[in-house]
Order: sequence, then structure tokens, then C-alpha cells
Amino acid sequence: MTARTTRSHRTLALVAMLVAAACGGRNGGSSGGGAGSDVLALMNARGLSEQDVTAALKTYTPTGKHDEYYTFASGGHGGNVIVIGVPSMRILKYIGVFTPEPWQGFGYGDDSNAIVAQGFRGGKEITWADTHHPALSETGGEYDGRYLFINDKCNPRVAVIDLHDFVTKQIVGSELIASEHGATFVTPDTDYVIETSQYPAPLGGAYAPIEEYDSKYRGAMIFWRFDKQKGRIVPAESFAIELPPYMQDLADCGKKGSDGWVFCNSINTERAYGGILEGKPPLESGATQNDMDYLHCINWRAAEAVAKAGKTETIAGMRVIRLQTALDENLLAFVPEPKSPHGVDVTPNGKFIVVSGKLDTHVSVYSFEKIMDAIKSGRFESKDPYGIPVIGMKDALHTQVQLGLGPLHTQFDAKECVAYTSLYVDSMVAKWNFCEGKLLDKLAIHYNIGHLMTMEGDTTKPKGKYLVALNKLSIDRFNPVGPLHPQNHQLIDISNDKMQLLYDMPLPLGEPHNAQMVKADKIKPIEVYKPIGLNPYTNEVDPHATTTGKERIERTAEGVHVYMTSVRSHFSPDIVRVKEGDRVFLHVTNVEQAKDATHGLAIGGQNINVSLEPGKHVNIEFVADKAGVFPFYCTEFCSALHLEMAGYLLVEPK
Amino acid sequence: MTARTTRSHRTLALVAMLVAAACGGRNGGSSGGGAGSDVLALMNARGLSEQDVTAALKTYTPTGKHDEYYTFASGGHGGNVIVIGVPSMRILKYIGVFTPEPWQGFGYGDDSNAIVAQGFRGGKEITWADTHHPALSETGGEYDGRYLFINDKCNPRVAVIDLHDFVTKQIVGSELIASEHGATFVTPDTDYVIETSQYPAPLGGAYAPIEEYDSKYRGAMIFWRFDKQKGRIVPAESFAIELPPYMQDLADCGKKGSDGWVFCNSINTERAYGGILEGKPPLESGATQNDMDYLHCINWRAAEAVAKAGKTETIAGMRVIRLQTALDENLLAFVPEPKSPHGVDVTPNGKFIVVSGKLDTHVSVYSFEKIMDAIKSGRFESKDPYGIPVIGMKDALHTQVQLGLGPLHTQFDAKECVAYTSLYVDSMVAKWNFCEGKLLDKLAIHYNIGHLMTMEGDTTKPKGKYLVALNKLSIDRFNPVGPLHPQNHQLIDISNDKMQLLYDMPLPLGEPHNAQMVKADKIKPIEVYKPIGLNPYTNEVDPHATTTGKERIERTAEGVHVYMTSVRSHFSPDIVRVKEGDRVFLHVTNVEQAKDATHGLAIGGQNINVSLEPGKHVNIEFVADKAGVFPFYCTEFCSALHLEMAGYLLVEPK
Repeated sequence: MTARTTRSHRTLALVAMLVAAACGGRNGGSSGGGAGSDVLALMNARGLSEQDVTAALKTYTPTGKHDEYYTFASGGHGGNVIVIGVPSMRILKYIGVFTPEPWQGFGYGDDSNAIVAQGFRGGKEITWADTHHPALSETGGEYDGRYLFINDKCNPRVAVIDLHDFVTKQIVGSELIASEHGATFVTPDTDYVIETSQYPAPLGGAYAPIEEYDSKYRGAMIFWRFDKQKGRIVPAESFAIELPPYMQDLADCGKKGSDGWVFCNSINTERAYGGILEGKPPLESGATQNDMDYLHCINWRAAEAVAKAGKTETIAGMRVIRLQTALDENLLAFVPEPKSPHGVDVTPNGKFIVVSGKLDTHVSVYSFEKIMDAIKSGRFESKDPYGIPVIGMKDALHTQVQLGLGPLHTQFDAKECVAYTSLYVDSMVAKWNFCEGKLLDKLAIHYNIGHLMTMEGDTTKPKGKYLVALNKLSIDRFNPVGPLHPQNHQLIDISNDKMQLLYDMPLPLGEPHNAQMVKADKIKPIEVYKPIGLNPYTNEVDPHATTTGKERIERTAEGVHVYMTSVRSHFSPDIVRVKEGDRVFLHVTNVEQAKDATHGLAIGGQNINVSLEPGKHVNIEFVADKAGVFPFYCTEFCSALHLEMAGYLLVEPK
Repeated sequence: MTARTTRSHRTLALVAMLVAAACGGRNGGSSGGGAGSDVLALMNARGLSEQDVTAALKTYTPTGKHDEYYTFASGGHGGNVIVIGVPSMRILKYIGVFTPEPWQGFGYGDDSNAIVAQGFRGGKEITWADTHHPALSETGGEYDGRYLFINDKCNPRVAVIDLHDFVTKQIVGSELIASEHGATFVTPDTDYVIETSQYPAPLGGAYAPIEEYDSKYRGAMIFWRFDKQKGRIVPAESFAIELPPYMQDLADCGKKGSDGWVFCNSINTERAYGGILEGKPPLESGATQNDMDYLHCINWRAAEAVAKAGKTETIAGMRVIRLQTALDENLLAFVPEPKSPHGVDVTPNGKFIVVSGKLDTHVSVYSFEKIMDAIKSGRFESKDPYGIPVIGMKDALHTQVQLGLGPLHTQFDAKECVAYTSLYVDSMVAKWNFCEGKLLDKLAIHYNIGHLMTMEGDTTKPKGKYLVALNKLSIDRFNPVGPLHPQNHQLIDISNDKMQLLYDMPLPLGEPHNAQMVKADKIKPIEVYKPIGLNPYTNEVDPHATTTGKERIERTAEGVHVYMTSVRSHFSPDIVRVKEGDRVFLHVTNVEQAKDATHGLAIGGQNINVSLEPGKHVNIEFVADKAGVFPFYCTEFCSALHLEMAGYLLVEPK
């Protein structure tokens, strides 16, 4: 049957359904399989409009069909990362990052504990994070689908997730800064992952009275060096640049012609710090007095050379280019930006920098070429209080466009010059042309959009088609679930001139701030760990890996080593006899190689649950500190005899 | 415009769209709003069948429209509860239960820490759980929408979630038992929440060699007394019944005429306990030798009277009716059940008990009337090794039906006598008639279904319409996310004779085992906490609640008390000055009363993030153990000046 006749058959069947419905028939044109309903009857029964019907058909993804795009969203103060399929808007996975998560066995007793512990700060167990801005690794300014980075605003840290198994492999942090927000952003070949402080503090964690804010408090931008081959950040090759005590905010790296630069905005150039009970204005008003703040233009390639040349000072273990050095080396210039800006986004062609001031109704489009001209010719209109040269607004601006109230972030279309900007206060998305400075369309969202995201929309090659509005409030959109509401991600079709709202997606856990969307075929995860016995954190067969028939229990000076395998439907050994006070080392290899043949291992009386995906090896260590009988068992429903996949840890009293 | 003309207009527009499509037009009959597409073009473009179109229209839920049903699913070893809207299958919320969760501020520094700590066991911090079977509170055998209970298989505990704010309010646990699985199940008026051990162990946590399994290891069924008025379990009024060392499994309470009884099945009546390395068969084969295990029929109403009469022995703080007492008081009888049974479900009319043996191809339908006749007339065919009377199979059976491989669980339709049973090995759902013992329909699922759920399908009044298959494996259904796959919940339309698959829903976090589905209008959550200053854990205005203008910092002998308010967009006070080593008490009241006006409060350098829903009061306590400058800020994007909602904790060195 040709495509044409197939279509004709479909048409006839559907028209039959419709006509039957129009004539009042309820089951006319039954489409088989027990459906027995028809389009119009369903529209009436469920109150669907024609618009709803097209939206349903643009998003519905039948069993076995895959989504076109992956979205990676930060989990906000959930401390995790959320993986979402587009256009179905189904959540595919929560990846445990800073916050331990027992289903995936992350931080509940195996080698992943060491990853969580990398994130401890100042000797204190920090087991949550406020993740904000995920960044996919890039090659040549395009997503390469290999790694994902994510930050923690509260206790400044950056994590590396390997997309070959969707597992967090590394957490780094520096006590140079006390908080951050402008992270993570990558350079176009992922040489560096950028993390910038938000609330100024004395560098390195020292105490200074707040009254010494201007002189002792500072910001900093950290450049974490990433080794793409090893898939790890190299702290020793990383460096930072000291910045004035403004609240530096988001950043974006130059692309193509502007590669080598990074643009970062700032708020609170007023250097307010609150003090309500002490007779001062709250920060929200103190920090919003100036009409202009400063867009920071930083030559990171030159800074890298300066750091390599050793013109740094080490603070809290981080090599820091002091502000005076940055000035001496011409690493930094400012451009005025209106007013209390939040978003800064470089256009795909690398020629323009779009800034939105959340208390301004315009977006400001700056020209990279003009900024370079001004810097090269030394044409500055002033200096900030710290001696940083400030380029005149008119010498940098390409155009300004009035979009509406509370503009925040901008993403780009596959179509030349087309951009989308979120309007927080208006609860709208604005579509506009950044070349000609022209508003094209506006669409209401529900409610109060923060970031927005188009497909690969912050790379050199945006893909168009979909936009997701990351709305902070849902209010009445979903069935009520108590005083704490989900957020609402709304999927929008941007393939036509007018935007069309397609889907409302509640966020059930976490508060995503930003997200990136990548074409599905760029993500190529492994199905099982190979060879059997692989340790996901070393990517090598673990020295304690066990094979079927080699299971054993060995008592050594340090404790009891148990070499265990798991296979449907038993652990071997299934009886482990130890003495009260013994240190127990469980080395467990899941010898399965079938896709999705995952086991879990939970041990009663201990705070332990690990996930054993096919081929994976884990090492567990604990002290059998209490005498008794402790069942252990498989926590993944792995087979018909899953409940029987159990054993006993027998702890004999001393 | 009348409904009839509206429908005609819709018909015409849709037919126009279809005809246009059939003629090759791409944008014919544009439905406005920029959609520009049409049904057939979309079907072709996205490869949708007619079946897919009806499925899409049966599940798509447009912006602002609410779902008809709530599903409450266990989060498996995620240790949480998942709230899902049906038919959209969107996840509305993850409720933190045993596992701390920072987005909702559960267990990250406020009063909820005490709830998490209620779940610690034997003095050890247990911060995860393996949740299996949620139970909605019932009144008269129907869901009343007030409370939800959920168990932990690994470290036996039961939690109480209040559905007026979707917050976990209590965790109880007993060291009487070492593991459980058959929990939670409620009596028809929620007098008791039932929790039954799984892997036998010496009662009360003592040690005994595994070789003394038959004599020293035991099971037990705990009846946790629930005070519906207070919304709390009352441990002092709870009791347990000792059971033989079989692996007791799921349970279901009698309904209507069978109210007062509970039916619980068991596996491993062989009393195998593994020992692979010691020359014994693995449990999976040791526990599956017998053709029959034992359905436990327990008269809980009589047991309650026995416990009230004081015929108990207190073990690990729990009043226990010893097995001999249970026999003396006629509380317990067995019925043979084939083979390695997993599910036991009482029919809505209360007349039958359906049991599925996972290694049998039949479901067995037992008659409550016949069982009662046998018990009353003392007609037993034998006794088990512990002296428990066993009713003959033929004296209890109503009918048996061959359904397929690996039958597990059964749920019920609104239609009289119609039941649905999950077939794990076959990966199918069977629809059958339990009165006449007749198979009606079968539907393939993807893949390996565990539990299944119909709307209010385990109450006295099931509602029909939808069924959800809780499939353990997804394998190829979704975009790959590495070796650890989501599960797959498939929504099935059961309103017609033939079942229709509607939707595949990935489970991104946790492994739900069971779920319950309740009509949306039964759930009536509050929108904000009232009056301002309410503490969700006491349900009273907190004695430390603060009002606008009364914010203050007080130094007392025990430390520094900070009485703080939050409102868009500041905390007051916003500067907190303490000395290194000070104990700090933050008493924070969110004085907002607008729906969804939630703030969060995160404190740098401490492991603290709390959620401040409108009107809520929280108490935070920590030691400022390190000198330095620590920003604190709002973690919920609450307003345009959200980033400015911040302050400083200044810890002056000693």
C-alpha cells in the first residue's frame, strides 16, 4: 500500500467517524481495538477545542515511539537534574547530583558516597543544593551530547554528569566565594566551565564586618578547567578573576567571532546590603536605585594566558587574578545595562549580546564589534569606583526594543535574527527580531515565566520548532496538591509565525531555573555496563569485581570482605555471618547483561540501598555495630521470584 | 449559540480541515492561534494511527483543565510518594516521606527534621525507605480523601501523610519485626493500619542463629491504631499478632459482610532460608517447593478485644498476642493457596477473596461464607507445624480461572463481578468475571506488570473507566537514559468491552509498587496556611510566630533567637550578627496569604533549606560553628526582585 492510499484510507475512516458523530452516533466508525469513540464525541465529552486537538496530536507520543528532544533542567533546590522528553513533556529521569537519592543508589552506601562527599564544604556535610543552570558540553559552539554541568547557588559548587550513563561523576567547589548564581556556562569547546559569585563576601571565607563591604567584600568569576578526554574538571588548572562587590549574575560566552570573551551582567552596583532592623532599606530597594548596572565584558582567553603566566594569587586553593592585574592586563571592561538586568545572551552568530533589565521594558542589543572598537581605541566614558573602564552605552548599543514588563531571558530560533524573550511580570513570551529591533508576536503563559528555552537555542545552531516556558507559578493550572505548588513548564510551538501553546507540564519535585534542549540523536547512552564488573566512577573493572562461581567471604585484619554476585533471582552469598563490631566490605557485581535487568540491594538496620544496573560493580562498607538478624534483599522488582531474592546478615553478639 | 450549533460548527471546521488535508492542503482550515496544521497532516507527520488519535484525545488535558483522578503511588526505594493526575498521567508532586527532600524543605533544618528522626531505627539515622503500598484512609469502606499511609519494607515503618496539605506528619516503627512488605492496608473505617513482616527474624531484634529458624524466627502482623480525629497513629493503642516463620505477604481487609477479618497470604511455608555458599539451595528454589502456601484468615475485631483484655506480651514496646493465645482465642485459620502467592484482594461486595499464585496460571476465588462455615463448624483438614488449623481447599474455594503466566494482583470494575488481574510473566492484563469464573479479555502491556490499579478499585465502590498497569520494566519504550531505566505506567481505558491502551508514562524517580486512584473531588487541600504563623506539624499557630513589625533579634542564655518574617521580596531582619559558636534559632513566618506565594530560605555554609508556603511558620536551629560571612536568600523564584531577597549571616570570630 502506498503512502497516498494509506492516507486516503485514513481520511475515509476519519471522515466516517466525524460524520457519524455529527449525526449523533456514539460509536460510529469504531476504530477497532475497543476504542469505540470518535473525535467529535471526545471533543464534546472532554471539552476540547480544535486548538486542543492539534495540540494533543502535536505532543502525544504513542507507546514505543521516542521523543525528538531531551531537555535537561536544573532541579532548583531539589539539588538534582531533571530529564524531560519533548514534545511529550514526560519526565524520563531525575539525576541525583548534590542531594543523595536512594532509588538510583546515589549516596546511600556505595562508591557514590565519595562523590557526594566531594561536595561537603568547610568540613560540613552539605547534602542538598540549589541547582540553577545546566550546561551541556559543546564542541565548536554546538552541543556534543557528552557531559552536563550543573551548579549550586547556595554553597558554590559545580557537578559533572556523564551522559553515557546519566550519572554524576564529580563535584568541585571553591571556598573562594560564598555563593554563586551565574553558573554553569561553558566556553564553545568546553575548555572551561564558568561559575560566578552572586552575593559578595570576603574572598576565601574570611570574616569582615558588613560595614567594610566596599573594601573587603568581592565577587569572582571562576574558570573551571575541563578535561573532555577524562570527563573531569581539573581544579589545579582552574583560575578565577576577582570582581568588584556587585552582585554578578548570569553569563554567556562569545561565539564564532566573539569566541574568547564572556559577558556577565550584574545587579546592585549600588553596593547595598540591606539592614532593615538597623534603619537601612531592604536590599530589594537599595539594589534598585541606579538606572544602569554594568555588563562585564571579560577576555577569558587573555585571562587564561595571564593565569598561565603565573600572575595570580592563590586564595582558598584557587589561583586568582586580582582585580588590579585584570585591569593592568586589559581583561575587563564594562558597558552600562538598564536596569537590574537578569539575562544576558549572545546571539547564535556571535555578533550581538542581548541584555534584559528586569525593571526596564526594553531588551538592549549590544554589538560585539562596537564593544571591541571602543576597547581597542580606548574610548571609555568613565570608570567605576574600582577603576574598571566603562564604555558609553551609545558606543556599544545596536538597538533596543520595547517588549513588555519584566523581561528576563532570551533564546534564539533557527530563523535568522529571531529571538524569544521571557516577560516575568507580564507573564508572556515575546517573539522579536534582534537585527531589525522589531516585536513580532506575544503569547500569554501561566504564570510568571523565568527562563525559557528553545531547541539548542543558546548554541551557534538553534533548531527552532519548540519553545518551553519555565513558569515559576502554576496557581490554578493543576489539581491542587496543598500550599506548595508545582511549577509549570509550557510547551510552545514556534514553527509558525504565531506561537501556539501546546502543553502544560507540572514540575512535581524541584524548581527548575534553566534548562537546555538537545536533539535526541546526540545523546547516546550505554545500555549496560561492560565488561561485567565495571565501576561507574573509575570506568574500569573494579579490582574487587566478582564472577559467578568465585563468590566468597574472606576475613582479614580490617574486617570481613564479602565478594557477592547478583543475578535473577538471588544474591550469592545469601547468608553473611559476622560478629558485632566487625567492619563489613560488600563487593557486589551484578553479572547480568540484559538491558533493564537492574537489581537493588538494601540492608536492614543500615542506611544502605544501592542500585545494581546490569554489569555494574559496587563497593559497600559499614560496621555491623548491632547484634541481630538483618534481612537484605533486592529492591528492584527484577523477576517473578523477586521477593525471594533475599538473604540474611547475621550479626552474632560479641 | 446552543450546544447543538456549536457542535455543528465544530464538525464543519473539522471536516474542512480533513478535506483540505486529503486534497493535499497543508494549512487548510487553519484553526487559528497559529496552529495552521490539521489532523491528517499531523497524523502523517508524527506517524499516529487512528487509535493514537483517540488515545491522545482521551488523555490530553488542556491548560487550566484539571484531571479527573489523583493517583497516589509509592516511590519504592525513593522513599517517597508520587502524586499523579489521571488521565493526563502528569506527575503533580513527589511527597517527601522517609527520605529528606530539600525542595519541599523536608528534613533540611526545620521542624520536619523531627518527623524524619521519628523514623530512625535502633539509634541509627535511616534516611531512605523502600515504600511499597500506599493506603488512603477509608470511611465505610470508601476513600474519604483525608489521609494517606505508606510503609517501608526495609526498616519496618509506617508514615502518615495529611492530604489537607500533602505533608508527612508522622512516622512510626516497631523493632518487633526486622522487615515487612504487607503494608499499608486499612480497616474499612481506618481504625487500624496493618503492617505485616516479610522476612522472619527473632521478634524484638534479638540474635538467633539461622539454624534455629523454625523455633526462634517469627512473623507478626501489627495493627497500628489510627486516631482519625487527631490524624495520628497511637502506638500505645496498637498491637500485634505473632505468626509462624513463613514470609507473610500482602493483605486485604474484609468489606461489608466480611468486615472484621483480614486476609493475608504467605510464601515460603517451606521455611527455607538460603545458604548457597553453605551447600543449600537459594531461597528462590527453596521457597518454591510446596504446591500450596497458606492464606491467613485473621479475625482482627476479635484480636482487638483480646488485646484490650490484656492477653498480650510486650516485646520491643509492642503489645503482642502470642501465637498460642491467637490459637486459644480462635483468631486465626489457614486456607491452602497455590503457589507462591503474591496478591490477595477482597471483592467490592466483600464476598470473595481473590488470590494469585505467581507460579500458578490460575486465580483462586475463595468464598468468605464458606470459610466462615468451615471455621464455625470446626471443619479443618489439618494443622500447620505451629498448630494453626487449615481449612480444606474445596471447603473454601468458590472458583478458579486460568488467566495466564505469573498472575499477581487483582482490582475491580464498577461493573458487577468484573475484575482485572496483572500477569507478570505474560506481560498482560486479564479482564475476567469472578462470579462466573470466566476470562473476558486480555491486553498486552510493556513490560512485566506488577500491581495494577483501577479507580477506587479496592474499595466497596470501584468507579471503572481507567486502569493503570504498573509495569516494572520499560526496556525500549522511552528515550534511553543510561543503564537505569524508568518504570512504565500504562493507562488503559476499561470503559468498553475491550481494553484500550491510552498512554505510556515513564517513572523518573522511584519504583512504584502499588498505587491507589481516587476521584479528584474527594481531595480538598488547603491553599495557604491559616491563620498566619501556623506550624504544619502542630496545626496550631507557633508560639514563636512573628508578625510584620514585630521582627527582632534576642540574645538569651541558650543562644540567639531571630524572629523573622518573609514577604515579597525581603526577609526581615536581613542582617543577622552572631558570634562564632553561638546557637542560632531562626523563627521564620511567611506572612503572605496569596496562593502560591511560597518562599524558601537557604543558608550558606549550613545544610539548611526550608520551604515557606504562605502563612507557614518554621523553626530552624543550628550552631554558627565557623566564623565568616554567609549569605542567606530565598530559594523560590517569588517575584521580579527575587534575587534581591537575600541577607547576611555574619559570624564574628571568637
